[in-house]
Amino acid sequence: MTHSAYPTVRLKPKAEARAIRHGFPWVYANELVTDRRTKALEPGSIAILEDSDRKAMGVVTVNTGSKIIARMLDRNPTATIDQNWFETRFERALAHRTALFDEPFYRLVHAEADGLPGVIVDRFGDVAVIQPNAAYADGMFDVLAAALEQVSGVSVIVKNGSGRARSLEGLDEELTVVKGSIDAPVPVPMNGATYMADILGGQKTGLFFDQRPNHAFVQRLCKDAKTLDVFSHVGGFSLAALAGGAKSALAVDSSAAALALAEQGAEASGVADRFATRKGDAFAMLEELAKEGEIFDVVVCDPPAFAPSKKALEAGLRAYERVARLAAALVKPGGYLTLCSCSHAADLTKFRNASARGIGRAGRRMQLVRTGFAGPDHPLLPHLAESGYLKSLTFRLDI
Amino acid sequence: MTHSAYPTVRLKPKAEARAIRHGFPWVYANELVTDRRTKALEPGSIAILEDSDRKAMGVVTVNTGSKIIARMLDRNPTATIDQNWFETRFERALAHRTALFDEPFYRLVHAEADGLPGVIVDRFGDVAVIQPNAAYADGMFDVLAAALEQVSGVSVIVKNGSGRARSLEGLDEELTVVKGSIDAPVPVPMNGATYMADILGGQKTGLFFDQRPNHAFVQRLCKDAKTLDVFSHVGGFSLAALAGGAKSALAVDSSAAALALAEQGAEASGVADRFATRKGDAFAMLEELAKEGEIFDVVVCDPPAFAPSKKALEAGLRAYERVARLAAALVKPGGYLTLCSCSHAADLTKFRNASARGIGRAGRRMQLVRTGFAGPDHPLLPHLAESGYLKSLTFRLDI
Repeated sequence: MTHSAYPTVRLKPKAEARAIRHGFPWVYANELVTDRRTKALEPGSIAILEDSDRKAMGVVTVNTGSKIIARMLDRNPTATIDQNWFETRFERALAHRTALFDEPFYRLVHAEADGLPGVIVDRFGDVAVIQPNAAYADGMFDVLAAALEQVSGVSVIVKNGSGRARSLEGLDEELTVVKGSIDAPVPVPMNGATYMADILGGQKTGLFFDQRPNHAFVQRLCKDAKTLDVFSHVGGFSLAALAGGAKSALAVDSSAAALALAEQGAEASGVADRFATRKGDAFAMLEELAKEGEIFDVVVCDPPAFAPSKKALEAGLRAYERVARLAAALVKPGGYLTLCSCSHAADLTKFRNASARGIGRAGRRMQLVRTGFAGPDHPLLPHLAESGYLKSLTFRLDI
Repeated sequence: MTHSAYPTVRLKPKAEARAIRHGFPWVYANELVTDRRTKALEPGSIAILEDSDRKAMGVVTVNTGSKIIARMLDRNPTATIDQNWFETRFERALAHRTALFDEPFYRLVHAEADGLPGVIVDRFGDVAVIQPNAAYADGMFDVLAAALEQVSGVSVIVKNGSGRARSLEGLDEELTVVKGSIDAPVPVPMNGATYMADILGGQKTGLFFDQRPNHAFVQRLCKDAKTLDVFSHVGGFSLAALAGGAKSALAVDSSAAALALAEQGAEASGVADRFATRKGDAFAMLEELAKEGEIFDVVVCDPPAFAPSKKALEAGLRAYERVARLAAALVKPGGYLTLCSCSHAADLTKFRNASARGIGRAGRRMQLVRTGFAGPDHPLLPHLAESGYLKSLTFRLDI
């Protein structure tokens, strides 16, 4: 028996109580008893989860409109989800990032793995961008933001409500500065370069921190190298390459806004004289560069998710293979090719096979030099680790 | 038709010619026509491989006594396997390591992926240790060693013929200094520490380079930390931790010789005052430390291969789970636990699951912070990448 102000929801007898007990953080819609009382719960309601024997398993948030009907918030069934609770979660998350990084630029909260289901927080120094991609976090946003401010001391807080996860939870799009103000792109130091994050205008939260260790690795291969960065966004790889001593970096992207930020970043990093951009479709540009007879020491392709869902998997793998084939043709013998995928549906083996097929179809031999994932500020629950979305493969050609 | 001094061997009609054409480097015994002429080939013979239509596919080495009956040496069927051929292979391999490392301490040749099937070369500055784990490399050892000397300029060459791969090829054990001399352990700089490699007395080639990036990552978590290094060998993790500012490091190993080298390394690294060792069975020692109420900020367990073969998989996974359970009990809340496996048979998913089960059975929650593999001087052929043996998982506990 629990003494709590929260209502109770109950697992069906055949639900995977064992998995949940061992750390799996979700209850699927078909696993929960959805009686009239449960159906009446507002999206984002806090509730006590009981197993089919009415034993309390923890505090969850319920969204009856979502396929993931309940998400575990706290395995202590007597927990109260208030500002103090959020502060404790943020303190734990902050301690890890402080151990890892000298400067406060990182993903501060990575959802389930940091004990805050559906919540993403990226930190750019004094600025925090919160993505409350679950109904409870959206409903309790003010409490969550107050806790974040208290723990981290940031002076600017942005609410970024956008993306697919949010629409699955039935939430609207919005992008609001809820505290302080931003009037220019924020400079972000990483791997010896300075990036420009356009917090209010850019994709996602303006900059991706997840590629940091993969950029750092490729940077080591770039001394005096002629490099190509396809799907460059704000120059993630190019600027790292130039900071590492690359002779030149050419960034290709279809977004003029992203390339303009890359150019500002190159200025801020003091490497603008070795940096060039080309705006256009990446596939067309790869073919164009081949026609021009261009050849590079190091090529990186970090495309958007070609296989975001199982349905898109086959077409996505063909697209990855095509990127690999076109890019391999631009790498000099003995040079390096880094291929990335941020597709959940394409697991490591499938992505590696598609990449190797593409390189092979370009008539090139290869050795796989390194396999990398998202950086350590993007932790995972082991139970969800198969879905680790970001893969980065570095090949050396003609070996 | 090929004009070559080499004999010809031929694939059976149903053999996987397509896989071999796409980069797979091996022919299995049941895929080759083993007529009287082929059976008569000496182990390690060089031959031309033809497909079942008698089209030449490349130059292979044949060992009719081995399950892998032929290994691809060169996809050019007119290649001659002589000192010049070995030199070209070594030059390619060396260029990659020179790009990666400031100092000449690395795995210089990683077998198939470096185009030299069965051949491992580790370089410790002026010393090269060659493991010729295939009959052709053993038979052509003098040519191979001369080529290595020519390309790398090393003044000491050691032939290390030991291990399972060698016995599968029907080769004897031996350990010989074939050029120059060694009279003391060789100091090896890595991750800011100095290790002592006992080339002639140690396990394998005296020191493992494969964990370098994994040690470097854990090192970042060790500032002011109390650390424990179980199955320490010559102090791989401990010395990196201390070089990274750890408050203390305790190394546990069952080998007195390995611990003595670890202590010499701690002296050479100037960290001996923060370093301690305990000799004994790792499992017993983990239980003993728990009884003593010891608790650490960072714990690393890098055991020998518990699951070297498919037959040993179930028992191996139970051993990994047990290591995880016993080690998790010694990690403070919010601390880090790194678990490694060098078992071919335990793939990433299986090893991760066993580790998570063990940590869960210790009553601890966890987030997976990083997944790492062997360093980039240990490249893989993508076609053999599933067998990437080394896995290193870093968990943070009680999140």
